[in-house]
Amino acid sequence: MTAIKGAGHVWLDGKQVTNLAEHAAFKGTFQTIQELLARIDDEPVGYKDAKLGKYVHQAFSIPTTKEQLLEKRAAFEAWSIQSFGMMSRLSDYAYALITGYYIDREQFAQYDATFPRKIERYYEQLKSERRLLTTAIADPQIDRSKPLTERPEHALLHVVEETTDGIYVSGAKMIATGAPYVDDILVNTPYSKAEEQEKFANFFIVSTQSPGLEIICRKSHAAQDLALYPLASQFDEMDAVVVFNRVFIPNDRIFIRGNAEGVVKAHRHQQLNELAHYQTVIRLLTKLKFVAGVTTAVAESIRVTEFLNVQQKVGELYMQVDTIEALLHTSETNGFVQENGVFTPSAVQLQVARNLGTSYYSRAISILKEIGAGGFTQLPSTLIERFEDEALQKQLETYYVGAASSAKQKTALFRIGWELVGSELGSRHDLYERFYTGDPFRIQSLFFENYDKLPLDDYLDTFLTKIQQREELLL
Amino acid sequence: MTAIKGAGHVWLDGKQVTNLAEHAAFKGTFQTIQELLARIDDEPVGYKDAKLGKYVHQAFSIPTTKEQLLEKRAAFEAWSIQSFGMMSRLSDYAYALITGYYIDREQFAQYDATFPRKIERYYEQLKSERRLLTTAIADPQIDRSKPLTERPEHALLHVVEETTDGIYVSGAKMIATGAPYVDDILVNTPYSKAEEQEKFANFFIVSTQSPGLEIICRKSHAAQDLALYPLASQFDEMDAVVVFNRVFIPNDRIFIRGNAEGVVKAHRHQQLNELAHYQTVIRLLTKLKFVAGVTTAVAESIRVTEFLNVQQKVGELYMQVDTIEALLHTSETNGFVQENGVFTPSAVQLQVARNLGTSYYSRAISILKEIGAGGFTQLPSTLIERFEDEALQKQLETYYVGAASSAKQKTALFRIGWELVGSELGSRHDLYERFYTGDPFRIQSLFFENYDKLPLDDYLDTFLTKIQQREELLL
Amino acid sequence: MTAIKGAGHVWLDGKQVTNLAEHAAFKGTFQTIQELLARIDDEPVGYKDAKLGKYVHQAFSIPTTKEQLLEKRAAFEAWSIQSFGMMSRLSDYAYALITGYYIDREQFAQYDATFPRKIERYYEQLKSERRLLTTAIADPQIDRSKPLTERPEHALLHVVEETTDGIYVSGAKMIATGAPYVDDILVNTPYSKAEEQEKFANFFIVSTQSPGLEIICRKSHAAQDLALYPLASQFDEMDAVVVFNRVFIPNDRIFIRGNAEGVVKAHRHQQLNELAHYQTVIRLLTKLKFVAGVTTAVAESIRVTEFLNVQQKVGELYMQVDTIEALLHTSETNGFVQENGVFTPSAVQLQVARNLGTSYYSRAISILKEIGAGGFTQLPSTLIERFEDEALQKQLETYYVGAASSAKQKTALFRIGWELVGSELGSRHDLYERFYTGDPFRIQSLFFENYDKLPLDDYLDTFLTKIQQREELLL
Amino acid sequence: MTAIKGAGHVWLDGKQVTNLAEHAAFKGTFQTIQELLARIDDEPVGYKDAKLGKYVHQAFSIPTTKEQLLEKRAAFEAWSIQSFGMMSRLSDYAYALITGYYIDREQFAQYDATFPRKIERYYEQLKSERRLLTTAIADPQIDRSKPLTERPEHALLHVVEETTDGIYVSGAKMIATGAPYVDDILVNTPYSKAEEQEKFANFFIVSTQSPGLEIICRKSHAAQDLALYPLASQFDEMDAVVVFNRVFIPNDRIFIRGNAEGVVKAHRHQQLNELAHYQTVIRLLTKLKFVAGVTTAVAESIRVTEFLNVQQKVGELYMQVDTIEALLHTSETNGFVQENGVFTPSAVQLQVARNLGTSYYSRAISILKEIGAGGFTQLPSTLIERFEDEALQKQLETYYVGAASSAKQKTALFRIGWELVGSELGSRHDLYERFYTGDPFRIQSLFFENYDKLPLDDYLDTFLTKIQQREELLL
Repeated sequence: MTAIKGAGHVWLDGKQVTNLAEHAAFKGTFQTIQELLARIDDEPVGYKDAKLGKYVHQAFSIPTTKEQLLEKRAAFEAWSIQSFGMMSRLSDYAYALITGYYIDREQFAQYDATFPRKIERYYEQLKSERRLLTTAIADPQIDRSKPLTERPEHALLHVVEETTDGIYVSGAKMIATGAPYVDDILVNTPYSKAEEQEKFANFFIVSTQSPGLEIICRKSHAAQDLALYPLASQFDEMDAVVVFNRVFIPNDRIFIRGNAEGVVKAHRHQQLNELAHYQTVIRLLTKLKFVAGVTTAVAESIRVTEFLNVQQKVGELYMQVDTIEALLHTSETNGFVQENGVFTPSAVQLQVARNLGTSYYSRAISILKEIGAGGFTQLPSTLIERFEDEALQKQLETYYVGAASSAKQKTALFRIGWELVGSELGSRHDLYERFYTGDPFRIQSLFFENYDKLPLDDYLDTFLTKIQQREELLL
Repeated sequence: MTAIKGAGHVWLDGKQVTNLAEHAAFKGTFQTIQELLARIDDEPVGYKDAKLGKYVHQAFSIPTTKEQLLEKRAAFEAWSIQSFGMMSRLSDYAYALITGYYIDREQFAQYDATFPRKIERYYEQLKSERRLLTTAIADPQIDRSKPLTERPEHALLHVVEETTDGIYVSGAKMIATGAPYVDDILVNTPYSKAEEQEKFANFFIVSTQSPGLEIICRKSHAAQDLALYPLASQFDEMDAVVVFNRVFIPNDRIFIRGNAEGVVKAHRHQQLNELAHYQTVIRLLTKLKFVAGVTTAVAESIRVTEFLNVQQKVGELYMQVDTIEALLHTSETNGFVQENGVFTPSAVQLQVARNLGTSYYSRAISILKEIGAGGFTQLPSTLIERFEDEALQKQLETYYVGAASSAKQKTALFRIGWELVGSELGSRHDLYERFYTGDPFRIQSLFFENYDKLPLDDYLDTFLTKIQQREELLL
Repeated sequence: MTAIKGAGHVWLDGKQVTNLAEHAAFKGTFQTIQELLARIDDEPVGYKDAKLGKYVHQAFSIPTTKEQLLEKRAAFEAWSIQSFGMMSRLSDYAYALITGYYIDREQFAQYDATFPRKIERYYEQLKSERRLLTTAIADPQIDRSKPLTERPEHALLHVVEETTDGIYVSGAKMIATGAPYVDDILVNTPYSKAEEQEKFANFFIVSTQSPGLEIICRKSHAAQDLALYPLASQFDEMDAVVVFNRVFIPNDRIFIRGNAEGVVKAHRHQQLNELAHYQTVIRLLTKLKFVAGVTTAVAESIRVTEFLNVQQKVGELYMQVDTIEALLHTSETNGFVQENGVFTPSAVQLQVARNLGTSYYSRAISILKEIGAGGFTQLPSTLIERFEDEALQKQLETYYVGAASSAKQKTALFRIGWELVGSELGSRHDLYERFYTGDPFRIQSLFFENYDKLPLDDYLDTFLTKIQQREELLL
Repeated sequence: MTAIKGAGHVWLDGKQVTNLAEHAAFKGTFQTIQELLARIDDEPVGYKDAKLGKYVHQAFSIPTTKEQLLEKRAAFEAWSIQSFGMMSRLSDYAYALITGYYIDREQFAQYDATFPRKIERYYEQLKSERRLLTTAIADPQIDRSKPLTERPEHALLHVVEETTDGIYVSGAKMIATGAPYVDDILVNTPYSKAEEQEKFANFFIVSTQSPGLEIICRKSHAAQDLALYPLASQFDEMDAVVVFNRVFIPNDRIFIRGNAEGVVKAHRHQQLNELAHYQTVIRLLTKLKFVAGVTTAVAESIRVTEFLNVQQKVGELYMQVDTIEALLHTSETNGFVQENGVFTPSAVQLQVARNLGTSYYSRAISILKEIGAGGFTQLPSTLIERFEDEALQKQLETYYVGAASSAKQKTALFRIGWELVGSELGSRHDLYERFYTGDPFRIQSLFFENYDKLPLDDYLDTFLTKIQQREELLL
């Protein structure tokens, strides 16, 4: 198996990182991704592609029956369990996106005649070469009170030169999660700007090896001791700003060129793409189960499980899990074969699950805080067995013991709890779950507008009609 | 079709009501129940009983397949839609309960050998005669800080005399919803009292015609003009305290006699009875859809639907509806054939739905308040067309007009809104949904204790094991 | 003492009410108001006006010291306690408003040169004659998505004819709380409409005896038995829509005529008028104390006060009371003598108290619901002593007894609880407290904009400066 | 000025720290404390002690007038502003505690006759030598479902040997905040254990230099770059577990010996000690102002201040500040001279403020998260000026610029925001504010029980009496 190589120009702590795979801030996650990719060679994550004669990721399958959709679920679930739902933008999300574009490729020919041919080629390449891919859509937010069309040119990614072979672009994109690890980044600028539209309205995929493309990382949470920070040291997928300094994009990677309507439609396609949302909700469910499991174990370790208020709070976590599971399940059983022959999960339950997710995760973390409470701040700074004094070790083993667990088990558990509620990785996840779907206000507005209100209307009509009939009877 | 006759001794406003069916406080609900019973003669509410050769309520069917369960759902749904989810203790709930006891009748033979035979007979009678039935379990709550076993004798329903034909009982039961309308009341006293246990531990069904049985109604919300209070005038099912003053219970209606363990088990059976819970959640869903429909229409009538904060709030109502629907649906598709051959819906989703229901309804009503706001308090006190001044009518039609609806339509809609958020019937429903499942704290505690935590444990174990393996690798 | 006479054309249930003071829907509140007015003849409600040589309401005093402000508080408190905070728009609010205009009368001369002279005369008349006054500002809300300036002419109150003696106006105003009981209504239309501005931009006071002025009441909550509905039967202040059908307004009651800037300023003056806000917060505090007292008594009557979750909830009510009290107190002690020589309470604490009030009351009512729970729906429909069967009375006295109170006391208490949580009056108060300050979103926006952020900025600057200095030290 | 030396045996990361003041994990906080102590030499933090002839901390003053109390406030405020409310257990808290014991010293003579004399001496020493002091009360929590009296002996700090000069104790105490920095720790074990009570029931002060006393630190959050983590690098006060391995306590530092009632009373004294609570609330207010200031600045930097939902949320922070300020202010103006001649702030407002604080801070942090949102996760990992590429620096300055601030200013601001919402120090503070008052359930229960409900009762009585009189009138 070929090793993943990551991006070209990665900046951390003001320095360019030269050997990513060996750097303390990246190597844990590199290893995790390597292990994940290895699982493609087997079910349930992979399936044997007839044409290629080898295993590819289930995210690329195009389901025509519910059973095939459920195979996809098994794959997404297996990957998310491997990282306990803590890696949100692994390439399975992007694979699902590209598969969605591939399925609907003919719809986009109207915006760019080359779209179908190019996406076919990219879909095959991605599938076959197991390239890693993430996305970068938003431009720098400098003054959010200004409409996008009033932004200065430099604030939007734009074309600075055109050649027969492609375009040169400059600008910046925020936030590209996972950028240091991937081969490619899908880039779009889905806004309508009044003038010189074609400068901005481009939808392309850029290689992370491209000259002029600089990846500016936030602080790494990963350079940690595995025993003390098992989550951060393995699962920090990194968020980054991508700076484009006259980056060349060859023609065959430009899917929509200079077409404002097209790039907006392509973005909406993403927003509504059920297969990508499907992956997202499966991952969310895994994460909520993980938090529920940790919280239960923490509560049991100090035996607060007998208190009514604790039971109520932990029970709320179980209700979160069962609710998201029911929405996911219903989305599957209400799925149907669309005109294009693809079996698609029902959209509304996935949207509800995503909306609930923006508040569920933060509530779950708050409950874990309330259960573990002061216990999280009295953990010794390292493993008890590392104390350079055996007599002291013995005493600490006595004082840190749990109701039904050894000091070692109990402190290991509280450490995971602390990573979730208190570490920088944990805090980043709280922010991520609140905001990754986009501006919650805008998302809820879309949900309201697109909701099929007809059944509710009919319902009310029945009632109003019935009352009127009664009234007439009484006259 | 035979008319329903209601209970014998019904007390309202300090007076005994002699002609229930004609009394302003009861006749609307009588008519509603009459209409509901008529629907048993047809699908989906009824099914043709092979032995009886006539239609009986679907609540009595004993499903052996998912399809049969779904027929039950269609029946419960049709009935609940007829009253817009506003009648919670119609006999379909009690029918489902009795059907549950009938299915598991042999389990109760250990507490009272006559149980199986008696419940069979009652089940057949109820089904065939379409008797109406409600339940009454709780005794007067005088001092809730005292455990039940420390209560004075008179505070618990108890046997005052025994004869060869049956028992005489005295005491009181709270709350018997629907009592004035029913033929029978299922009575239980599921507590363990240290002394003279057999006095209290009885599980029987009493006829509402029994001498000495007095039904003490709360204030009626029903004696209202249909046009102004369409909900209250048709759907007030009434709550009542039942006073037993040496009421005779014949042997064949005593299902468990003097057996503390038995009556507690019978009560728990009720708590956990999936078929009755199934009806409950179906009704809840209907009600939430109704509130969502009314709120949408109110918002559209004054066109506040363009404001983000309104979209967010109304969208939350849609999310409630889809969440409960998904839980119900998942309960069905996860249902299975039990050892006794009965296809039973999965319990955990029904419990989650019920728990969510205790806060969802009150939140839904709060949202309706926020959308209609001051509009609810400026409604004219009667229909505009009833104003004794035509010129004034014309003016009011101008001032009460909606964004896309006439003054008549808009005020009719706000009146229904006011009934939900402001009327005594509406307030009673808010209380009902919060508390009908029992003490929420106790319910949540049971939920926690019974929850299958094993999958979460396994989950966490996988993770901890994985970390340990990694750590060992690194050594 | 002269009897109050109320308004001229009052419409209830489609009929014009001819004898208000004797009508079941109004007489209870008439009596309450009569009693309140009588208290002006004494301290603390009244003070002896030097010029008039008789007692007038403290709301008219113009405080120049903190002590004088506190005399005002005593008066407002005494009045609000008399109605347990349940009457929100008694004339003391409007008296405070007019006193505010009177104090700042010279500021309004720029919009209408006659303002100072007219307001002086009205202030003196109001004070001396103890006229009753309410306000009516909002026009019918037909389509809230449309800006006010796009509304059709008939939707805004407007001048239809001008004479040398005054103007004739037509239109409608919503909501005039207390309208049936008052002598005068203060009317304003504080919007800027592009065309024919002078038609709309008028600020006047209209007599409720004016021909063409029709008061359209909402449903009355008052026609109730005092024993069963002590609050509603005494304190329903009524909300009404006021229809103007060519109503004549004489010149001396038109304070600002045809001046858009002036009427908007006059409205803002009201919004920010500390003396009126001061009365409002004092009344809110009384109401919160009342709910806290009722809830405590309900909890004690069934002795749930020993449960931790009950203690927590009732304790939250005490915290509401102490918080509002502290804000009010701080507003007083931070008060100061303004340029005009008037001692004014500090504004920001009153605004915070009002903002908190919009959620506190509804939360308080929710807590009362959770404490009384099912107890509210099992109350007998009338007093036990009214049951036409003495033996039954005796039994009910046994079953309705409390932990430390008789059945009579306990049911009386739960009845008041039900009025607060379940009656139409109670529901109207929940709506009132949520919305009376205006659109909460708009109010909060104003609060944010007007807030003095300078101290917070300075604070942050200190910190940033300190860090910078440290950094430089380290270089 | 003498340098502070800190504790003797401090353990971090498994190693004993030998040179605390130079160790990366401690030196920033050492410097902060040093600066704070220096301020005692001046007003407002210090006052000139007549007897000693030198400046001592205002926490030691014994106020007899409101003015003297306000001098104390100025001192507490000045200290808390120096660390922006982020250091919660600086010695001013403990100084206030000891001053409380000193004031009420005669009350404790009944439990230990030596108490008054010893506390006098310690009070004078603490004041004069400016020793640093913290507290440690709770024993290891192994099984919280077990009452304290059922715990095994080793789980409670206990006497292992007695000599004529003092006692030897073994056990552990959690959590001693600030322990590595202080000279002394106040220790108490306020539980009633049935047997051998005198072993456990001791209240003493131990020197951190004592042989056998080991301070086990949690992970340090402080070893950070000042520019990137200005809060953590200066203000991590550290939390620690204190292990006692046969630690000798000399007689003159044992204040109550072997008296269960006495140690419980001493602990309650602490809980209710108004002077210490006063310091606590002043510090809370400083912290809330700091968060409000940072959030305002973050909102302005990306100009989201024009959005209604942002205004509402930031406005909520202002309301928190004004509410706590009003409670504090009212506590002062309602303060009074007690029998012992000491002017004491009113207790109830301080308790309300502390209770509100347990939810306010976590809500404030949540609002800051919602305002800064994704901005916190796209910060570059170091200062822009540290990037080893000038061209890239220039570009980043363009992309990270704010609406009205430079990239440098904006990123500096978001870094402070991230410390509050995302760093380990920030998470520790969220936990601290939620739980430092103790188990919130227990605290609220105490609040309920101690609350003076009489005024509410009187209030309700007035009302009930009034209704009764009315009813009688109507008969």
